[in-house]
Amino acid sequence: MIDFNKTRILLEPNEIPKEWVNIVPDLPAPMTPLINPMDGKPAPPELAFAIFPKECVLQEVSQEPLIPIPNELREIYAGSYRPTPLHRALSLEKELGIPGDDIKIFYKNESVSPTGSHKPNTALAQAYYSKRDGVNELITETGAGQWGSALSYGCNLFDIKCTVYMVRASFLQKPGRKILMRAYDAQVHASPSNLTDSGKLYYESDPDHPGSLGIAISEAVEHSMRSDKARYSLGSVVNFVLLHQTIIGQEVKAQLNKIEVKPDVLIGCMGGGSNLGGFMIPFARDKLHGILPDLEIVGVEPRACPSVCKGDYRWDYGDSAKKAPILKMHTLGHNFIPSPIHAGGLRYHGMAPIISILSGKKIMSSVMHHQTEVISSGLMFAKTEGILPAPEAAHAIKEAIDQALAAKENKEKKNIVFNLSGHGFFDLLAYKEHMMGNLVDYEMPREEIEKALSAPDMPKIDETRF
Amino acid sequence: MIDFNKTRILLEPNEIPKEWVNIVPDLPAPMTPLINPMDGKPAPPELAFAIFPKECVLQEVSQEPLIPIPNELREIYAGSYRPTPLHRALSLEKELGIPGDDIKIFYKNESVSPTGSHKPNTALAQAYYSKRDGVNELITETGAGQWGSALSYGCNLFDIKCTVYMVRASFLQKPGRKILMRAYDAQVHASPSNLTDSGKLYYESDPDHPGSLGIAISEAVEHSMRSDKARYSLGSVVNFVLLHQTIIGQEVKAQLNKIEVKPDVLIGCMGGGSNLGGFMIPFARDKLHGILPDLEIVGVEPRACPSVCKGDYRWDYGDSAKKAPILKMHTLGHNFIPSPIHAGGLRYHGMAPIISILSGKKIMSSVMHHQTEVISSGLMFAKTEGILPAPEAAHAIKEAIDQALAAKENKEKKNIVFNLSGHGFFDLLAYKEHMMGNLVDYEMPREEIEKALSAPDMPKIDETRF
Repeated sequence: MIDFNKTRILLEPNEIPKEWVNIVPDLPAPMTPLINPMDGKPAPPELAFAIFPKECVLQEVSQEPLIPIPNELREIYAGSYRPTPLHRALSLEKELGIPGDDIKIFYKNESVSPTGSHKPNTALAQAYYSKRDGVNELITETGAGQWGSALSYGCNLFDIKCTVYMVRASFLQKPGRKILMRAYDAQVHASPSNLTDSGKLYYESDPDHPGSLGIAISEAVEHSMRSDKARYSLGSVVNFVLLHQTIIGQEVKAQLNKIEVKPDVLIGCMGGGSNLGGFMIPFARDKLHGILPDLEIVGVEPRACPSVCKGDYRWDYGDSAKKAPILKMHTLGHNFIPSPIHAGGLRYHGMAPIISILSGKKIMSSVMHHQTEVISSGLMFAKTEGILPAPEAAHAIKEAIDQALAAKENKEKKNIVFNLSGHGFFDLLAYKEHMMGNLVDYEMPREEIEKALSAPDMPKIDETRF
Repeated sequence: MIDFNKTRILLEPNEIPKEWVNIVPDLPAPMTPLINPMDGKPAPPELAFAIFPKECVLQEVSQEPLIPIPNELREIYAGSYRPTPLHRALSLEKELGIPGDDIKIFYKNESVSPTGSHKPNTALAQAYYSKRDGVNELITETGAGQWGSALSYGCNLFDIKCTVYMVRASFLQKPGRKILMRAYDAQVHASPSNLTDSGKLYYESDPDHPGSLGIAISEAVEHSMRSDKARYSLGSVVNFVLLHQTIIGQEVKAQLNKIEVKPDVLIGCMGGGSNLGGFMIPFARDKLHGILPDLEIVGVEPRACPSVCKGDYRWDYGDSAKKAPILKMHTLGHNFIPSPIHAGGLRYHGMAPIISILSGKKIMSSVMHHQTEVISSGLMFAKTEGILPAPEAAHAIKEAIDQALAAKENKEKKNIVFNLSGHGFFDLLAYKEHMMGNLVDYEMPREEIEKALSAPDMPKIDETRF
């Protein structure tokens, strides 16, 4: 008689975590500051406060290892979708020929949120703090639309205006995402637009310009500076976003404890780093404290945009238009335009500073996969576990499958846990192309990356000045 | 301090119901037989066994009030998505100005299944029994695609071939659903096709014929008769489908018991009747037994296709092409072609015999709503509860809102519970049209219904012969 409670592990809404985990004070190297792109110096608090919601800036630089989740926010998480389930992937295990309990695959299911991914975890938090502090509008950019949908949902819930600059190519290709954002009352503009100076630079010479995440970020930042009651909202990369996402890992810890399973490897895809960061930070902290010393943590990147696997660790702009803060991070260069893979959420030139430091200090490792093998793994997951995964999440699935098969080959015991960051209902074209044999792989040649990294406008920051 | 466990009520996977509720032996009027369309006589078991999976036929005519759910099936439900959550709609209540606990709105969230609706509840059961009995292919029809997706998922899990005839208009309008079914390895054909005699009747004169659910049913039934290892699969209307769906109501009962809430009104949309039936049957049985005597049960229909509200209770074909069994039910006539409302799952001319009998005996009531007010309510739900509902489910939301506002007006205490049958990620066009002010309402004039009901080919069944 199977214990069903061990195949899908739930937590009661009352068991929702009370604290986020801030790894900054435990990092094996000091956190680097955000640099003002205007003068190359660390951004003073008053500048950061003008751009981001105040509480988020305080969280960005906090040295507290645990930060309480406000009760009003816990109430909203608990009422709508959190804690999310942790599943044992029994059907996938069967398909891979690993019966029994020697090799177990688990996945955290973030696809059950209202907008279908982990993004609302920070969207709700940012909207909550903004409302509390009298901010009446949040402005952001979105590529594939997951982040824009999540922020639209969060802002609407707290009765804040939301404006989204959506990369025009996606705006045209994914009308569904735009409708979803509109349903939450957000204003959605194709970027580049003629609404900002940053947008006009491109729009005026070509109103059909396909846009890029870099241009959209510049437009959103510029727009947010217009009113002292508006703020810019970020969906990844910076510390406070990863912090909010640690609610995922906190739950996974409680869920694994409940079934007395010790994880051997944690796997997550990484674009800006919020999905992997939120999932693994509570465990990485344990690893840094000597608990779980043998835990492997693996970030998965697309071969088309491998910022940790192939980029440099150095100072770079967060956006192409050089309006966003400069960060010390793994980067492929802010001029790097990733190939049009379907995993839009992984098409970012940089990587969260936290992830960059943990990678540099070998607390975690990173791997790359091609999109055909990724989507093929996503399809195997759909056929076995039922959920059609987002192409981003399918990167983690591919790696989990590889690790399980390697453990089988080597007759190892292994508990593999990965984060299913979202579903693929808005990404069906990727699966269609794969089934029709039309999916293309992209790999950046080393020379092109080197060219982007040696561009004359890469920032030169004098670290001795701070 | 709010008790979060009372705002989203979960059951552990181990608490998944052990039994389905069969209301047939408790009905206030005898269940009528399925009639063979070839000779107008009750279908003999051997004919039914040739069309449907054997265990389903036995369940169709069972007089057992409770039917055990096989453990292997419970394991699959439990591992993937069941029990589903019951939510208190606190944000919606706030929006409606009904703070406090006098009026409470709850919804059962069936949108969390892998294909996004309640349909897998019976798809998994039918695939399970088919596999067990040596059936190697299930054939069905689908309109909007919810049922086709669910059966594709179920068949793939049990390694059975699945063939879906999809109404061509939907096949062209909803490419996403087709890709999802293909991802589960189903064969999907636009109907009418040139693969069956029933299809060729239409296809040969017009290869672009938009099709209808009636034609697609005929094609699926015909296809299933070709092999003695193939069976036809139905997603609604008949007793055994409603039976499998009672897992929903069984869970809702346990969830309401857990928070000690007695429901005053249960609301569900009804197309063929499986969603409402599965939700309310366990409660209707209590009502018939004198428990919960004052419970109201309300089925919601679109004004464009009001089979219970405006149809006759009489014998009629289950499909337009007169190949499917004849049932005694509420019907608008098998020749009735409903207007193209977005709630494709509610565009059916007939109604489950169980629902028809319960309606006739006033155990439940029915109401109608227009699609603009329905989609408008769906939008309010998305803005407050976060989940964008399927247009079908939005019918129940509209009625729940109306009932809550009426209770507020009358200063009544009321516990309102409705079934959220699915999400609307594949129905974004409906919301777009609504937001652009382009959504159209349809109402069938009485004369047109009368014309369909007085068609010369309506079946004449001599009940004295059985």
